[in-house]
Amino acid sequence: MALIVQKYGGSSVGDAAKIKHVANRVIETQRAGNQVVVVVSAMGDTTDELLDLANQVTENPAPRELDMLLTSGERISMALLALAINAAGASSRSFTGSQAGIITDEVHGNARIAEVTPDRIQEALNAGDIAIVAGFQGFNRETRDITTLGRGGSDTTAVALAAALKADVCEIYSDVDGVYTADPRQIPSAKKLDYIDVESMLELAAAGAKILHIRAVEFARRHNVDLRVRSTFSTDPGTKVYSGKLGENMEESVVSGVATDKSQSKITVIGIPDLPGKAAALFTTVADAGANIDMIVQNTPTGVDIEDKVSDISFTLPKGDCAKVEAALAAAQASLGYRELEVDHEIGKLSVVGAGMRTHSGVSATLFNALAKAGINIEMISTSEIRISVVTSLGEVDDAARAVHTAFGLDGDVEAIVYAGTGR
Amino acid sequence: MALIVQKYGGSSVGDAAKIKHVANRVIETQRAGNQVVVVVSAMGDTTDELLDLANQVTENPAPRELDMLLTSGERISMALLALAINAAGASSRSFTGSQAGIITDEVHGNARIAEVTPDRIQEALNAGDIAIVAGFQGFNRETRDITTLGRGGSDTTAVALAAALKADVCEIYSDVDGVYTADPRQIPSAKKLDYIDVESMLELAAAGAKILHIRAVEFARRHNVDLRVRSTFSTDPGTKVYSGKLGENMEESVVSGVATDKSQSKITVIGIPDLPGKAAALFTTVADAGANIDMIVQNTPTGVDIEDKVSDISFTLPKGDCAKVEAALAAAQASLGYRELEVDHEIGKLSVVGAGMRTHSGVSATLFNALAKAGINIEMISTSEIRISVVTSLGEVDDAARAVHTAFGLDGDVEAIVYAGTGR
Repeated sequence: MALIVQKYGGSSVGDAAKIKHVANRVIETQRAGNQVVVVVSAMGDTTDELLDLANQVTENPAPRELDMLLTSGERISMALLALAINAAGASSRSFTGSQAGIITDEVHGNARIAEVTPDRIQEALNAGDIAIVAGFQGFNRETRDITTLGRGGSDTTAVALAAALKADVCEIYSDVDGVYTADPRQIPSAKKLDYIDVESMLELAAAGAKILHIRAVEFARRHNVDLRVRSTFSTDPGTKVYSGKLGENMEESVVSGVATDKSQSKITVIGIPDLPGKAAALFTTVADAGANIDMIVQNTPTGVDIEDKVSDISFTLPKGDCAKVEAALAAAQASLGYRELEVDHEIGKLSVVGAGMRTHSGVSATLFNALAKAGINIEMISTSEIRISVVTSLGEVDDAARAVHTAFGLDGDVEAIVYAGTGR
Repeated sequence: MALIVQKYGGSSVGDAAKIKHVANRVIETQRAGNQVVVVVSAMGDTTDELLDLANQVTENPAPRELDMLLTSGERISMALLALAINAAGASSRSFTGSQAGIITDEVHGNARIAEVTPDRIQEALNAGDIAIVAGFQGFNRETRDITTLGRGGSDTTAVALAAALKADVCEIYSDVDGVYTADPRQIPSAKKLDYIDVESMLELAAAGAKILHIRAVEFARRHNVDLRVRSTFSTDPGTKVYSGKLGENMEESVVSGVATDKSQSKITVIGIPDLPGKAAALFTTVADAGANIDMIVQNTPTGVDIEDKVSDISFTLPKGDCAKVEAALAAAQASLGYRELEVDHEIGKLSVVGAGMRTHSGVSATLFNALAKAGINIEMISTSEIRISVVTSLGEVDDAARAVHTAFGLDGDVEAIVYAGTGR
């Protein structure tokens, strides 16, 4: 008997009819001879509606109370799913994050899972019940308060439970059939992958692919949890994200996929003295402002004498962090000694990811040739062992993605199926 | 420093603006030098909307899961109120029923409070915080599951907390200024009472007055909690419901108020043998069907021989229980030996309540004279020490209430103020 953890996103449980559909799917999984744990997100736009209510009350909601508010969303969807399963003749019990033993640190709004003690889930499974668990939420033992894991945290709940329960597989359901070589909404010729290694999945998630929450993938990698990305609305087996060894008939792709990210801005610090410690001082200022930066490029210094030498440093960061970083840098202009700041919100990032890059040369050549042929200008470049990312202008990034997708032979013969819904 | 428990109903926290209004009211109470615990119901029609969702999923919701679902309503309102209070510059923390130590039995949907262990509330108060508590909900220790106290259970939560914390007063806020001599929506000349004894309040609640939940009043009586019924939307001191001794300037009213109840039906069992044990068998059948009956009247038996003697027995019960009782009685017709059943949904009950009835005679005479003068036919009569109730036809009960209200000199000079909203 296998133990399967299934996670259904908000669009999969968006109304009563969809909840009944999911209930049947869960029951089928159990009747096929499996133990089933189901993690659910809040219905449709519930979380946004609750956030909206909070914002009507105050512009600056207290984090503890905001968590208390938002966690009611999953409480609604999990209870409804349990009701639907029980009504359809199977036996199920729903559990809050706290009841399911999701113990976190006390960082409200973005808590990290510290420990999972799923005793009650195991009891329910032993009794033959289907266990329904509220995603996105946990419990801090010291303060005895409810916490949330941050946006998309339900994926993490599912993977953490799968690891703690030693589940055979963790299935992540949404309105997309699996992991594609690119976002099929953007590149309709994108192909579905039958499998992908977890490192590539991690790089794709980091590069802007929205299919899986990055913390969940990281958790799966660290705890060797096999994931399967599937659609709630089809019987397609989806994409297996493997954490362990390659299977017999599997070969690492040179390039698994292409992802774009339009959520970043670029800040260029012009004319900063090329002296030891200046870059460190600059990025300490940025970090103290609470921003996560992504790519960094430093120009070759210009100037004749050592004391005159200055360079330009560019970095990318989430658009939302821009204002506070600009303010922090402006306040530190005297001590940092730079001439001026340039901020560009009109950028796009394109990444090519594949575990096979480790052993194949020529990937960057193919990439740059494809971009050159399409007449696209590259503003920044960064690489990891299994990823190459470039920054282009925002207006060109979609064209760039299509050109690169074709150049790496990723185009499929059939148009990808995208199911109704608004994504997870 | 006094400790005040305040309870705000659903119409008092129906939207963000009202929640901010309540927040200010709570903060004023604290700034006046009091410790404040606030119990809230779910916003507006939230509970009905959640019930509606459950009914879309199944006609017969599992009680444990229904409780899990419904309790999310108070979680939303309590978190929003805490956010509003914190935003307005005071310090508050919200607690679920379970966190507030409301321990109940395991009867989902209609749990009874077994114990209140408000340690975290006391800690919050000691720290100078305002404690916000979700009404209507509790926690069963054995099953470790969430329970609900039944409709109107938030009143009970407030009174139970007031008793456990030895609060000086428990204020119940709604959209009505206090307890009136009759429902001011029905009889605009009704007068607000400055005070009423808890026994009379209990009888009024049992007789259909919607101002306070009967279990809450019963709890207040048993634990000597002083209640005050007030409006969220005025500064009127409202009505004090006293559980202890009469104050110096207080005098028991002969008649405190008039209440009507249109939610009952009448079943008459015609031609049941007048033999020992028959009535017991009849009401055992009714009780086994799960119905709560209210008034009972038995006619004088007719017939010549002892064996032939038959009588008619009438009783009233909630309309919703009628069908199942009819079915149970029909199934037992042979053993009970009655001739036929008559069901009347078109009845109304009128009750006159007053602690002074104990020491004053002539109340029933005044009542029956007033009804006779108004040409109203009485179908059933029942009395307690401090209450007289009569059943009339549904169409006549409002006229009856007005006539009786006038006859007992309860009419006031000014029209009662009814605030916007749909009641609690």
